[in-house]
Amino acid sequence: MTITAPDSVGTLRDGAFGPARSLVCRECGTERELGPHYVCHECFGPLEIGYDFGTVTREQIEAGPRNIWRYKALLPVPDDIEQSPNLEPGFTRLLEAKNLGAELGIAKLWVKDDSTNPTNSFKDRVVACALSAARELNARVFACPSTGNLANAVAAAGARAGIKTVVFIPSDLETPKQVNSAIYTENLVAVDGTYDDVNKLASEIAGEEEGWAFVNVNVRPFYAEGSKTLGYEIAEQLGWRLPDQIVIPVASGSQLTKVHKAFQELVALGLVEAKPYKVFGAQATGCSPVATAYKDGVDAIRPVKPDTIAKSLAIGNPADGIYVLDICRATGGTVEDISDDEVRDAIVLLARTEGIFTETAGGTTVGVLKKLTETGQLDPDLETVVINTGHGLKTLDAVSDRVGPAATIAPTYDAFVAANLI
Amino acid sequence: MTITAPDSVGTLRDGAFGPARSLVCRECGTERELGPHYVCHECFGPLEIGYDFGTVTREQIEAGPRNIWRYKALLPVPDDIEQSPNLEPGFTRLLEAKNLGAELGIAKLWVKDDSTNPTNSFKDRVVACALSAARELNARVFACPSTGNLANAVAAAGARAGIKTVVFIPSDLETPKQVNSAIYTENLVAVDGTYDDVNKLASEIAGEEEGWAFVNVNVRPFYAEGSKTLGYEIAEQLGWRLPDQIVIPVASGSQLTKVHKAFQELVALGLVEAKPYKVFGAQATGCSPVATAYKDGVDAIRPVKPDTIAKSLAIGNPADGIYVLDICRATGGTVEDISDDEVRDAIVLLARTEGIFTETAGGTTVGVLKKLTETGQLDPDLETVVINTGHGLKTLDAVSDRVGPAATIAPTYDAFVAANLI
Repeated sequence: MTITAPDSVGTLRDGAFGPARSLVCRECGTERELGPHYVCHECFGPLEIGYDFGTVTREQIEAGPRNIWRYKALLPVPDDIEQSPNLEPGFTRLLEAKNLGAELGIAKLWVKDDSTNPTNSFKDRVVACALSAARELNARVFACPSTGNLANAVAAAGARAGIKTVVFIPSDLETPKQVNSAIYTENLVAVDGTYDDVNKLASEIAGEEEGWAFVNVNVRPFYAEGSKTLGYEIAEQLGWRLPDQIVIPVASGSQLTKVHKAFQELVALGLVEAKPYKVFGAQATGCSPVATAYKDGVDAIRPVKPDTIAKSLAIGNPADGIYVLDICRATGGTVEDISDDEVRDAIVLLARTEGIFTETAGGTTVGVLKKLTETGQLDPDLETVVINTGHGLKTLDAVSDRVGPAATIAPTYDAFVAANLI
Repeated sequence: MTITAPDSVGTLRDGAFGPARSLVCRECGTERELGPHYVCHECFGPLEIGYDFGTVTREQIEAGPRNIWRYKALLPVPDDIEQSPNLEPGFTRLLEAKNLGAELGIAKLWVKDDSTNPTNSFKDRVVACALSAARELNARVFACPSTGNLANAVAAAGARAGIKTVVFIPSDLETPKQVNSAIYTENLVAVDGTYDDVNKLASEIAGEEEGWAFVNVNVRPFYAEGSKTLGYEIAEQLGWRLPDQIVIPVASGSQLTKVHKAFQELVALGLVEAKPYKVFGAQATGCSPVATAYKDGVDAIRPVKPDTIAKSLAIGNPADGIYVLDICRATGGTVEDISDDEVRDAIVLLARTEGIFTETAGGTTVGVLKKLTETGQLDPDLETVVINTGHGLKTLDAVSDRVGPAATIAPTYDAFVAANLI
């Protein structure tokens, strides 16, 4: 990757990454300058953003725009980020879920609903941060390998920003998912191979080509920080306090670790009071390497070959899996998994109780919430938040044989009465 | 319809309809008490809500929630509306569209993007107001005839509110559209007939059954007021001022008339300065009775049999068509129509320039904006707003043969280079 050589970081404009100070290795703590790097040169651990936060107040945040940039003082983005065309994601609804709570026996339950983001998933948050990094690093191409939500978000954000996008997908992807990316970009590239093959090709291109920002490869440290905004918003929307329990889906594990990081930062900055909270991870049984490790009481994640309808969670070798284990164990939470049938049931349950149509990832999270409650892992008397990461319109097939008309009638009042519907 | 007999309105709780004073006939001005009525008993004209607004300030609105209830002092809803479970629609993004503006040669262009509402169309606004009326009138069933967006919105809002829903659709509706309603309700009823047949059946049931609130039939006056919030939000998001020009899709014509009404109310209340603005209506040529009347210079709308991919605009005999003509003519705007191919082109244009994936109705509106500019009907030097009413995920078929992969390659760097993509 040669967007900027390590020694050319001095050519960045002042404040290009806001409060971000450096890239810090999550394993050995080695620091290096900010740039398009993602692996520690010392120990090959993952790099993440280190910050020098100034004073940040609730009032300052509340006076900001109604999107993730209200938290710009806590993200690796410049102070003038709102002036650069972007999709303005975030500040999605936090809905109190009284019906679902009553159904599950949970006294106080909230759904953080990211299905109403611009391209209908939480990926708009991370892509917005990656886009800022790509812009500041003078990338000429904004790219990703993906099978769905990420492809939509990258293609759409790039279109609005006026930067060339290239999106790589497996060639056997369903037509609707292809359309939902191709609508935004001239450069949807179908690759004859598995998703793993597509990913490997992306890393190779990132290493060979100049000026490419692959959101989930060489600008991943910036990208991943976008998930923190889920945590910030939950705390702010609860009235500047933390919940007692939170249930989060686990694909790579990045989202869960970043929500926890967000809560820790808010405490450290004095924006919320410190308090104990439990973090729970949710997986589908067909791709549950982290849940398996949790239940086996081991620290290492054994990779699996995914086989589940929850395709946006189907990462067999999750990069942040070990950190998910650490956080769930340390906070008193757990990692649980459910079957594909339970995922489908949970999609219908959430729709029928709260009017929210979630994709399979959200079905997994809500279904795990149900299982956690039924098995006593989650305390139903404590205030609980569950995250819905995406929209059911993207995974219609998962439920299309499960719901449908209650009756088909002739167009007459007599036929309606005879059907005896309600 | 006997939810409440006309003489039993006294049983409503105080403030059930907020600032609403009465139902007023749009044609003859006759007033009657608030209730589940929609046709004037004197002249059979349509009833709409008459208000006694108190003092309403910008500060009061700005201190409200980030959804349509910030405007509750201007809607027929009670002051405690936020306490009743609802989908919390509205306050969607108003995005400056620099790329699209540059493409069309318009100096200052904004897109009001209602595709990110809870069920991904502006219908969540009107349904939320209808739901409040249904609740205050003690309806036991919340219902509609629909082919798409309205069905989604009614089924979802009813689920969250915990009121029984019944949604009537033509039995030949595509499976994805059925799923997107059936996910929320046990009572999706397929009717063997055309959409007109379904509509007639709904009116018959509304007349025969007690306690049914059909959102677009017997509580239509309340329902329709929800569209005003589009106008309020545009003005507030522009910094409490009106645009010079606005382009709005025309199905029944209700949305266009209500946005104009909203602007007029804001001026009357002193919330924005009075100024001239032009209102333009957008139709697809395959269902363009209002555009035809406009071009023919006549006052009467001749009904048509719709034949267009813009199905959510396909109302052949638009109830508010004559009022649309009045408003467009009086403000100096026009009513224009485009072909289905131009609709498809405009969907791709909006996605590629602004990262917004619109349904066929939005394609119609953006395509008409383009035509208005090219034909000199719209002044490119004036500030212009175009409304996107729904999401492209709902009408994927319209563009699925128009966009797709630029190339299909083997999973190797050499194959990528050989494809010579960018």
